[in-house]
Amino acid sequence: MHGTGLDVVAALKASLGADSVLTEPADLAGYIHDWRERYTGPAACVVLPRTTAEVAEAVRICAARGVPVLPQGGNTSLCGGAVPGTQGQPPVIVALSRLRRIRSVDAANNTMVVDGGCVLAAVQEAAAAANRLYPVSLGAEGSCQIAGTIATNAGGTAVLRYGNTRENVLGLEVVLPDGSIWDGLKALRKNNTGYDLKHLFIGSEGTLGIITGATLKLHPLPSSHAVAWIGLANPSVALDLLGRFQSTCGARLSGFELINKLQLDLVIAHVPDRRNPLAGSHDWHLLVELADNGAEEELTSTLSRVLEEAMEAGLVEDAVIAASEAQRHTLWEIRHSVSEANKKAGVGLTTDCAVPVSAVPTFIEKAAEAMWAEVPGLPYIVVAHMGDGNVHFIPFFTYPQWEEVEDKEAMAHKMRHVVIDVSNQLDGTFSAEHGVGQTLMAEMTNYKSPVELKLMQAIKATIDPQNLFNPGRLIPPKG
Amino acid sequence: MHGTGLDVVAALKASLGADSVLTEPADLAGYIHDWRERYTGPAACVVLPRTTAEVAEAVRICAARGVPVLPQGGNTSLCGGAVPGTQGQPPVIVALSRLRRIRSVDAANNTMVVDGGCVLAAVQEAAAAANRLYPVSLGAEGSCQIAGTIATNAGGTAVLRYGNTRENVLGLEVVLPDGSIWDGLKALRKNNTGYDLKHLFIGSEGTLGIITGATLKLHPLPSSHAVAWIGLANPSVALDLLGRFQSTCGARLSGFELINKLQLDLVIAHVPDRRNPLAGSHDWHLLVELADNGAEEELTSTLSRVLEEAMEAGLVEDAVIAASEAQRHTLWEIRHSVSEANKKAGVGLTTDCAVPVSAVPTFIEKAAEAMWAEVPGLPYIVVAHMGDGNVHFIPFFTYPQWEEVEDKEAMAHKMRHVVIDVSNQLDGTFSAEHGVGQTLMAEMTNYKSPVELKLMQAIKATIDPQNLFNPGRLIPPKG
Repeated sequence: MHGTGLDVVAALKASLGADSVLTEPADLAGYIHDWRERYTGPAACVVLPRTTAEVAEAVRICAARGVPVLPQGGNTSLCGGAVPGTQGQPPVIVALSRLRRIRSVDAANNTMVVDGGCVLAAVQEAAAAANRLYPVSLGAEGSCQIAGTIATNAGGTAVLRYGNTRENVLGLEVVLPDGSIWDGLKALRKNNTGYDLKHLFIGSEGTLGIITGATLKLHPLPSSHAVAWIGLANPSVALDLLGRFQSTCGARLSGFELINKLQLDLVIAHVPDRRNPLAGSHDWHLLVELADNGAEEELTSTLSRVLEEAMEAGLVEDAVIAASEAQRHTLWEIRHSVSEANKKAGVGLTTDCAVPVSAVPTFIEKAAEAMWAEVPGLPYIVVAHMGDGNVHFIPFFTYPQWEEVEDKEAMAHKMRHVVIDVSNQLDGTFSAEHGVGQTLMAEMTNYKSPVELKLMQAIKATIDPQNLFNPGRLIPPKG
Repeated sequence: MHGTGLDVVAALKASLGADSVLTEPADLAGYIHDWRERYTGPAACVVLPRTTAEVAEAVRICAARGVPVLPQGGNTSLCGGAVPGTQGQPPVIVALSRLRRIRSVDAANNTMVVDGGCVLAAVQEAAAAANRLYPVSLGAEGSCQIAGTIATNAGGTAVLRYGNTRENVLGLEVVLPDGSIWDGLKALRKNNTGYDLKHLFIGSEGTLGIITGATLKLHPLPSSHAVAWIGLANPSVALDLLGRFQSTCGARLSGFELINKLQLDLVIAHVPDRRNPLAGSHDWHLLVELADNGAEEELTSTLSRVLEEAMEAGLVEDAVIAASEAQRHTLWEIRHSVSEANKKAGVGLTTDCAVPVSAVPTFIEKAAEAMWAEVPGLPYIVVAHMGDGNVHFIPFFTYPQWEEVEDKEAMAHKMRHVVIDVSNQLDGTFSAEHGVGQTLMAEMTNYKSPVELKLMQAIKATIDPQNLFNPGRLIPPKG
């Protein structure tokens, strides 16, 4: 059953055409290295199918020969999820970049059907052209592909209002590990006819099949926005403010991002044209956005009213409301500059935990304590999608400090471990939005219950009995 | 392996206590008949466990003896989903009524954790006591249990704004068919660590396990409402109005219910104190509700503005906006009286299709044509959750007319069939919110694709390898 890489390459070329199969090292480079250059591994080849039928044909060819399959979208994973590893048989990478049709937009149904390889930004633009919003928005949106965002259930900055990718997918078309095609593209809000299979594939990180098409949920395009920058004393105050905004603004609350002083200082120091929006210095900062379909003045006045009341209650140290679209943009630019700033400033050991929103202040406090028990006084960055309970708690070393660390890998591991342990104690998770990929496989074994792992392993074995789709990823093998 | 009903009853009594096992016919009656008295079948016994551990113990006792298990909540299914059938070995009914603790409410996290047997209304009340909304709302809320609403992914009148039950569940505790307990109760908005198992159990109609606990998503309690009753010419106009309301009001639009003239006439004729809210007669009627956290005057003025513009555009024949809570209540009472009116007036052959929202006008037109091809001129009722694309299209016979029908079962089957066929041609579904139960098993085989059925059968066989949980329900056996 198991053939060689050469067999499968020849068969793929014979079936899909030589121009659809890449084997030259120079051609493979962009597919086998992740964009941060942290992970790489060999591949048998890269296949570039033009249609769902060609994806299915490629999968059947691999399945018949027992060759692993690695589905790849825009290759923007933050945890090595989209490139080959160094263990096991080199996979055939099935890249979706030629599947980029917007198949249809039904504005009256608030849905669109797209090919899996459509770039997220192209999806957003096609929705906007129909006066609709596809709300999933994240840093990589200019290059990540919709199928990748679905296979990883991507988060981003709009989750508070619109949910994760999962909540914005109504249907899927999937090529299964046996090469059959499941057409589950129905564009329905309600459908109670058996197990809701799409949810198995959303977030499955390519271990159960290849997503070749999707029916997406669209929303009315908000016509007005109001944004505030708020200086405050601590995360507990931020939690209090979140409650006030939610009870006053309901679904209009579309952004609630928390950063600490160090994060703002690093952005100001390392990214050109970024300034402190407030006159004074504050330990913590919130970026709050309201969005709506009504008049902008109404939104702005609601925002100021909540802020005034919060100031009277002593919750807000200082705040500014953007007076124009340019000012709104300037405030958001600070938030969007954190990765650039942190990369320039030093080595941040990123984590991606989520805890109950009510536990965010405790999580930050306990994570700092746990970190300091290992490295007393080490500074930390906090960038949090506070409204989702998703905190990127980042132990931070300047480059000179990092040079002094003897065993860097052990330090990175230790820091991640102590932070994740705190999250676990608070009934949180070790991966909120980045996924598992290659980075967090040990955590799957350490933190998931045996009953849960067993269920996942059983599902994996049922849908991919040859264990060819991303073997060893996401679901730890039975032990 | 397969034992008798007596074995299992004795073992259950020995383990859970005699007072937790019902066997007398008088005691069983309420559990083996559905509330509309359309379905019944024998049961080995009814078990009333007090804890999740007792549920697990009961399941292990059944599993060891190969006795089928029928999980039961409030027994309010509309399609025979909660009572035994007449085929196969009589099941042990596991009723959840003693599992009725509100385990915890975390207002700051907008979540609550509840036992599976909590009545939906009790869940709503506990949320309201914390100044929060659990939004799922439906006719049976006074008796249906939360686990039943989850196992059937219940819909209702708030889906447009808040989604189905599925969208309001963050975590589950499930007793699996082998008697193990999956604790998936995490109260997180984001968690990308493997397959999202809860979605397998939501809507599984008791075929994969027993839901003993749930973490529910709460929302800010809306403080203001505005309701209008609108007379209009046809469903196409309603679709146009829906688009206007969605683009103007965004998430504030919380109800958009369409009924036809016959439905209003029947309510007025058969339910005391119901009156036409408008002076004249109209072919179609809409009940539109906005809800928000701001001032009521703002909402009302938004509602009138949209209506005025629609009137100028010739879309609205007449409309009235409720001027008080009492008037709002009066308008909603008309909508809530449809079942009572239709039962008094005659025999309505209910269907529960959903199509893309944009296809609702075509669906109604084609369904009427298809019905008239069988029974020329037969009147039909329409009650539609228009915003969800969910149309209850109901061929309607007065009692005298129904008496003249020779083969009533054949007529009921034929009417359902022609309506579902139209839905299928429009990429719709044959069950939007009521589920499959006993009524729609043939439709699962007829309308689901072989690939989809095969996936569902594989999942069923993996999680319930002995096929003991609601055997023969929801997922048609392989063959």
